[in-house]
Parts: sequence; C-alpha cells; structure tokens
Amino acid sequence: MEKEFFQNKIIKQILEKYKVLWTLNYLGGLCEWDMMTYMPKKAAFFRAEAMANLGVLRQKIFLDENFVKLIEQAEKEEGLNDYELAIVNQLKRALKHYKLLPPEFLEELDRTTCEAHEAWEKARKKNDFSIFEPLLERVIDLARKEANYLGYKEHPYDALLDIYEEGLTTKEVEDFFTPFIPKLKELLEYVKKSKNYSETNELEEEPYDTERMKELNKQTLEFLNIDPEKIRLDISVHPFTLSLGANEARITTRYHQKDFLQSLASTIHEFGHALYETQTISELTQTPIGGVGSVSLHESQSRLWEKMVGHNKEFIKAIYPEIIKISPKLENYSVEEMHRYFVKVRPSLIRTEADEITYHFHILIRFEIERDLLSGKIKVKDLPIIWNDKYKEYLGVVPSNDNEGILQDSHWAGGNIGYFPTYSIGTVISAIWKYHLEKDLGEISTLAGSKEGIAKIQEWLKEHVHKYGAIYTMKEILQKSVGEELGTTYFLDYLNKKYKEIY
Amino acid sequence: MEKEFFQNKIIKQILEKYKVLWTLNYLGGLCEWDMMTYMPKKAAFFRAEAMANLGVLRQKIFLDENFVKLIEQAEKEEGLNDYELAIVNQLKRALKHYKLLPPEFLEELDRTTCEAHEAWEKARKKNDFSIFEPLLERVIDLARKEANYLGYKEHPYDALLDIYEEGLTTKEVEDFFTPFIPKLKELLEYVKKSKNYSETNELEEEPYDTERMKELNKQTLEFLNIDPEKIRLDISVHPFTLSLGANEARITTRYHQKDFLQSLASTIHEFGHALYETQTISELTQTPIGGVGSVSLHESQSRLWEKMVGHNKEFIKAIYPEIIKISPKLENYSVEEMHRYFVKVRPSLIRTEADEITYHFHILIRFEIERDLLSGKIKVKDLPIIWNDKYKEYLGVVPSNDNEGILQDSHWAGGNIGYFPTYSIGTVISAIWKYHLEKDLGEISTLAGSKEGIAKIQEWLKEHVHKYGAIYTMKEILQKSVGEELGTTYFLDYLNKKYKEIY
Repeated sequence: MEKEFFQNKIIKQILEKYKVLWTLNYLGGLCEWDMMTYMPKKAAFFRAEAMANLGVLRQKIFLDENFVKLIEQAEKEEGLNDYELAIVNQLKRALKHYKLLPPEFLEELDRTTCEAHEAWEKARKKNDFSIFEPLLERVIDLARKEANYLGYKEHPYDALLDIYEEGLTTKEVEDFFTPFIPKLKELLEYVKKSKNYSETNELEEEPYDTERMKELNKQTLEFLNIDPEKIRLDISVHPFTLSLGANEARITTRYHQKDFLQSLASTIHEFGHALYETQTISELTQTPIGGVGSVSLHESQSRLWEKMVGHNKEFIKAIYPEIIKISPKLENYSVEEMHRYFVKVRPSLIRTEADEITYHFHILIRFEIERDLLSGKIKVKDLPIIWNDKYKEYLGVVPSNDNEGILQDSHWAGGNIGYFPTYSIGTVISAIWKYHLEKDLGEISTLAGSKEGIAKIQEWLKEHVHKYGAIYTMKEILQKSVGEELGTTYFLDYLNKKYKEIY
Repeated sequence: MEKEFFQNKIIKQILEKYKVLWTLNYLGGLCEWDMMTYMPKKAAFFRAEAMANLGVLRQKIFLDENFVKLIEQAEKEEGLNDYELAIVNQLKRALKHYKLLPPEFLEELDRTTCEAHEAWEKARKKNDFSIFEPLLERVIDLARKEANYLGYKEHPYDALLDIYEEGLTTKEVEDFFTPFIPKLKELLEYVKKSKNYSETNELEEEPYDTERMKELNKQTLEFLNIDPEKIRLDISVHPFTLSLGANEARITTRYHQKDFLQSLASTIHEFGHALYETQTISELTQTPIGGVGSVSLHESQSRLWEKMVGHNKEFIKAIYPEIIKISPKLENYSVEEMHRYFVKVRPSLIRTEADEITYHFHILIRFEIERDLLSGKIKVKDLPIIWNDKYKEYLGVVPSNDNEGILQDSHWAGGNIGYFPTYSIGTVISAIWKYHLEKDLGEISTLAGSKEGIAKIQEWLKEHVHKYGAIYTMKEILQKSVGEELGTTYFLDYLNKKYKEIY
C-alpha cells in the first residue's frame, strides 16, 4: 500500500530509517500508559531511568548524520506530494527540537517529569501541594530553559505553545480569549438569573457502585460502536488517551463515588480522541505522520462527542436503560430530568467536570499562570494563593483544599506546559464541525439516538477530519475540509441556542 | 552504592554504555507482558513490527564497535571481582549470540514469534491446532537455523538448551531422565494401588465464581508477605512472571471455572518466581547481571513455594478461612480433606495442573519432541498424533482435543525451544533447598503456618539463593551456598516420604 502514498526515493529511504524511531515512540507510549494505570509504585525509580535513557537514545538516533542528511536532501526535492511534504515538515520540526535541546537537558526533563508525576500522585493522595511543589519548581525551571533553547520572538511561552500547536503564540491566545471571555460571562449571568439555575443536585448525594458505573461506561461505548479489539478502557487518576497507531488506542476514566456522570463524560470524551486516532490512515502508522498532528483538532473531537453527542436528549434516552441500572434511585428521574442534569451549568472547581460555559475560565486561569510563570512574573510557591484568587475572580468559587485546586491536573507534572490553551481552541472548533456535519447529515439530535446515526457521524468525521491525520495543520484542515477559519462565532451561537432553551 | 560492586575502570565504562541496552530490555519486557495481558487484538500487527525492530536495534547497539572493544578489553583485565567476572561472562555469552545470529534472522524470529503467539491464542480459542501449525512450522524452522548459526558439538538441540541453562546438553538431559523416570513410575504405581487413590474429585464438579477466586489469590499473596508496591497479579492465557528489575515483578494466573486450586497454585508458583527476582540485589538491576541468571534455579523457587509451602497442611489451614469463602459447598470439607485434595496424585493431560510425580512425564514428552523436531526425526504436522501417543505411553491418558493436548503451552509460540527441561531440573533442585532450609530453620510444615514463618523462609532463600542473582551459574550457586551437586536424591526422598504417607 505504501507506494500509493510515497513515490520519492529520498522519502522512502527516510521512512525505512524512521521505523526504529517509530518503535521507540511506540515503546515509550506504552510505558507511559503503564505508568498511569498499572505500574507498581516502587517501580517508579527504574521507570524514570528507562524513560530518561529512552529520550537520549531517541535524540541520538534522530541526529544520526545520515538521517539528518536525508532530511536536508528531502527539503530540496521538487514535486513532493502532500504526504511527502508533511513528512518533511514533521521531521524538520523534530530536527529543530533535537538540535536545539542538548541531550543532557532532555534526559533531565524525562527523569524530572517521571519523578514529578510520582510526586503529584503522592501529593494528591495526601491532598498536599507542598509535596509536589519542589518538583513543579524543577519542571517550570526546565520549561524556561526549554523556551530559551528553542528560541522565541516575543514571549518565552511562545516556544512552548508551538510544541503542541504549530505556530501558536501567546499573543494569538490572548487575542482569542479577549473578546471570547466577556461573551461567556454574559451568558453565564443570564443562566444564573434563570429560575432553572441551581448550585446543587440531589443526584450527587449518595455514593454509586463502581462496578455498575463501569458497566454503564462499557455499554455506552458499545452504543458508540466502539471496536473493542482496537480500543480499551482502563482507570487512571487523570483520564487520558494513548494511541499506538491506527489499530490501537487506550482510554482511561476515573470513578468518583457520588458522580456517575463524571466518569461517563470522561469515557465519552476520551472515546472521541481514540476514535480520531483509529480513523486515521492505518498505512501511515509507522511514519512521522501517523496519527493526529494537531492537539486542538484532537480536542475538537473529544468535545464534540462529550458535549454535542453526549448531551443530546436522544442519546441520553438511548443509554437511559443502562443509566438507571446504577441505582434504583435513578428510576425516579425521567429522561427529561436526566437530560437537565447532564447539561447543567454551574461554576465549579474542577476543570474536567466543568460545563461548556465556565470551562473556558478554567483554561484562561491556567493559561495566565503558565504565561506568568514562564516570564517570571509569578512564582511556584505562590501558586495556591494565585490559583484561589483567580478562581474567586473568574468563577466565584474557592477550593477548600489542594486536590480541588492546584493539584487537579496532571499536565504540569508531565511537563506539558503550553498545552491548556488548545483545550479552548479545540472546543471552539468542535462547533465548526457540528455546523457543517448537520448541514450535510441533519441534526445531531436525531442522529445521536441510534447506533446507525452514530455510525453516520463517525463516517462524516472520518471523511472530513480524521483521514487528514497529521498531513496538514489545524488551520489547513479547517480550510480544506469545510472552508472555515478558526473563530468563536459558531461556538457562541451553539452555546446561546442550547442554554437559552434550557434556562 | 555501585562502587562497592565495581572498581574496574573498563567495567565501569561498560556499565555506563550498557544502560541503553538495559532500557531496551526493560521496554521490550513490558511490551511482552502487555501482549499477554491487556493488548487489544488488532494491535498485534504493529506490535510484532515494533518487537522485530527492537530486536534489530538491540543487536546493533550491542555490536557497536566501541562496546565490543570494551568487552574484549575487559576479558583481559586482571584482578576482577566476582561481580565483574560475571558481567564479562554474561556479555561474552550475549556477544557470541549476536555475532553469530544475523540481524535479518533476529528480526524474522521476533516477528514470527509475535505472529505465532497470536495464532496460538486464536487456535486455542477455536481449539484447533491447524490454525497454529503453519506458524509452528516456521518457528521450528527458525530454531533449526538458530542452532546452526550458534553451532553445537553433538546435537543441534544443544545450542538451544544452552540459551536457557548455560552449558546444558541433550546428553545431560537424557542422563538426567534415564534413571529418574523409572523411579517416578515405580512411585506412581504404588500410589495407583492405594485405596486412597481416585481419578475424579467432587470438588471439581461445579463452577466457582471468578471474583471470589481472585479474592482468595489476593489474600493468599498477602499471607505470603507480598509487597503489592513491587509485585502485581493479572490474568493471562498462560501464567507467567515478568521481572523489570528488583523493584518490579508482574505475575499472572488464569481462572478455570471448575478448579479453584489451579489458579491458586499458579499464583503461588509465579509468586515464587517474582519473590526471587525482587530479592536479588537492587543495585545490580541496570547491569547485565541484574535479576536471575539460571532458568532452572528460577523454577526451583516457584516449585518450592507451590509444592513445598503451598501443599503444607499448616499453610492450607492458614488460608482455609479464605478458601471456604469461594463457595458454601467447600465448608463441608475439613482442612484434612482439603489437604488431600491439594496433594492428590492423578495422571492428567495438562502440565501446569500435574502433580509432583507425573509432572516429569509431561516434561520428558516435550523434551523428546523438541529434540526430535530439531534433528528432523519428526515433523510438525504429525505432532498431534505423536503427542497423543506419548501421553498414552507415559501417562495412560489421551487428550480429547487440541487444547487439552498440543496447544496447552505457550512456549513454542514464543520460540522458547529448549526451555522445558529446566522445569524438571529446577523442580529437583527445590528439594535440595528444602533439605538445607529445614536443617537450618526446622520443618517447613511448621514455618508455613504463619506470616512470621513465611518471612523466615523468605529470608533464608534470600541469603542462600536470591542474593546470588546472575552472579554465578546454577551449579556454582548450589556448590557455594549448600555444597551440593545437581542430583535427584533429595527430591526422590521427599516424594517418597510425602506420598507414601498419604497413599
């Protein structure tokens, strides 16, 4: 099959050599998944060593003289097709990265983030930021160093944003949030004045049985036409998706005793990520453009499934018989009432549980903190206070402990500084897909009620988003697929329509 | 700490370079564990690719000019201590292997065994050897090639035996079995004539609940002082242990609906392996002598725990309250009766379920088959018939289907030809340890009844076996630790005493 995608001789030589790098990425990915799911605690030290050694080896192999020469040769080739151009672009980006970051630095980064993840888990168990603080100091210090190594025009944070979303800058993110946030505030004020608004919910008073919640998630994934021979579901402190090629993705969720919706929503969210990866072109798996390129586009898929399919009355109706199996109490709630529970708006402390309106305040807070940590304007030791102040300012709520606040996300422990803004950008993009998908197929509200309708949505996404994999950038795919640019209009229209109907 | 073990400069340089090889072994090990436990089915193709690429990379890095030079230099060094000598020996063995086996061959071997494992699992699901046959043909063909590449004096099988147990030859194995087997037959005849002998057991008539069997295994491991932060238990088609250094070992078991004892016995057996690995010297983990060297010694530990501790009346008494939780029916059986069930002798079809007497017939059959496949005396396509004939001859039982016969073990699918004889040799060694342990600490029958007694056994094994890790050969450790040579005397004494008391 490969010859259909790649004709150029240099590219073919590159791909042959790339296989070993793909292998190291593959093994490293599996190792990370294991670290988050099944690794025995005392294995952490040697695991961190292995990950650090792996990072150094990966860089060494990438920077092999012959491989670098091939990349430089490929850059000069004429008449490359889109697949081949994408390969050159991806490798150039990686090459820049590896050339600018010294091996000792990468080794330290790998080792530190392994240790930081351990410390973060420990800190969460003890609900105590001070356990994580010294490690976070080191991570931020390394992030600053990384920005300096990589270089930037205006703000050190730009260098990190670019790692996750090619070309994204601090200014762009600021320009994105500046007009967006007031409109969300406006809508939130509207909702809060509604007679339907409530800050508590009696569905969250008693603990649910974990095994039954697991069964609901399993049945829901089945309704979503999951292929269990490609995608598996496990448990981790922080839900995530790992893809190991178009034939294998692993998603996780977590179980909170009093909130079945959270684990269900995470499951559907991560399913959206996994579906995306498994619907990319399988023949590209072992190449530098295997899987998905844009982190924002990734989030556009998970949010579309979680909020636009998963919030749908017809969808909830379809899984309702499974929902009420969790607890006899739930039988007292009609599909209508259950739907209202699913779509409730309520300023809260935990990002992953946030509704669609307040979610972006959570991201804004993280963005501001990351930006200011990078510039040195604020310090790690002051984070709990800064965090709480910002939550009070933007959301009107204050965490009563570290787990509800500064310790809730795993991103910083993993060294993923510059990732958060893609959550908001991706969410906004999901509404662009929704608009065009509905123009082609009709309302999601109808489609989401049956396995056949779900299959149609999946097929549309495959044709309009998934199949592009990492071949183009986020902006190119938006343009190529539906002729759109990144913007918040569709998303705000969608939010206003949805929540003014309910509240 | 390292400086206590290693003083030589060349050795230190070797160890620094070896870290990347350790990392690749580590990642490959985890990958294999995942393949047997949690990997989604359709991931098999890319997984096989990754494992094949990893094998090639490992060889390439090992054969790096500078690394090979260091090994050759180290060989000439004088005044090396035992740790350093062991390192040189292990690396020389690996070097010989890598020099003699072409990279294309290793790649094909890795890829074929990955595919063969998949085919074997499929064949087991359909209970149909013909699905596995073509892959087994390829594995045997590769094993023959491997023997030719590695070279041998008398029999091609010698080259493969040496991979698992340094220096072991076909002739030695034949000489081991020749006087051993008639004595086992004699004892079996005695048992079969006893009035206590029975071929069926009413404890195996009704299905047990898997969750409850899991709980029994968990509680039993706790009684065995397991450190859950180092060792975890999962499920796989074929029970096995993976060690990832002194801080991490993973064991698996399987659940048969009508036989709780099988999953319990496998759990205790694999625990013996895991304990061994986790009691080796942690500072050696990232070196070529991290973990255990001898496969036979490994088996001496698992069998000691499974049969010599696990069959003990006091041990059964201690876990009895957990056993009877599996099913109300079990309450009708006293500790005495339960003990008789644990130690029953009964010629059977499945090796891993076999009693201590007939077990060695299972191994002999596999040894003869492997030896004759290697020499070309027999062919893969005739295996089901040969298998059944041999079972009839040695054990007087005939499999009614492939799962009960030729498909029961995963070894051949994994390319592990030459491994089986170490099971018998290891079992025989366990009796040597038992003899000396009891001389020092008193009867296992007393020790096995309490967590404190168990801890004493563990400490003794650590001091007399585990701490030697891969520093010496099996024969050296037997000599060094208890001044013994490999022989069946202790084992036959133990068997005769144990089973003549019961039957």
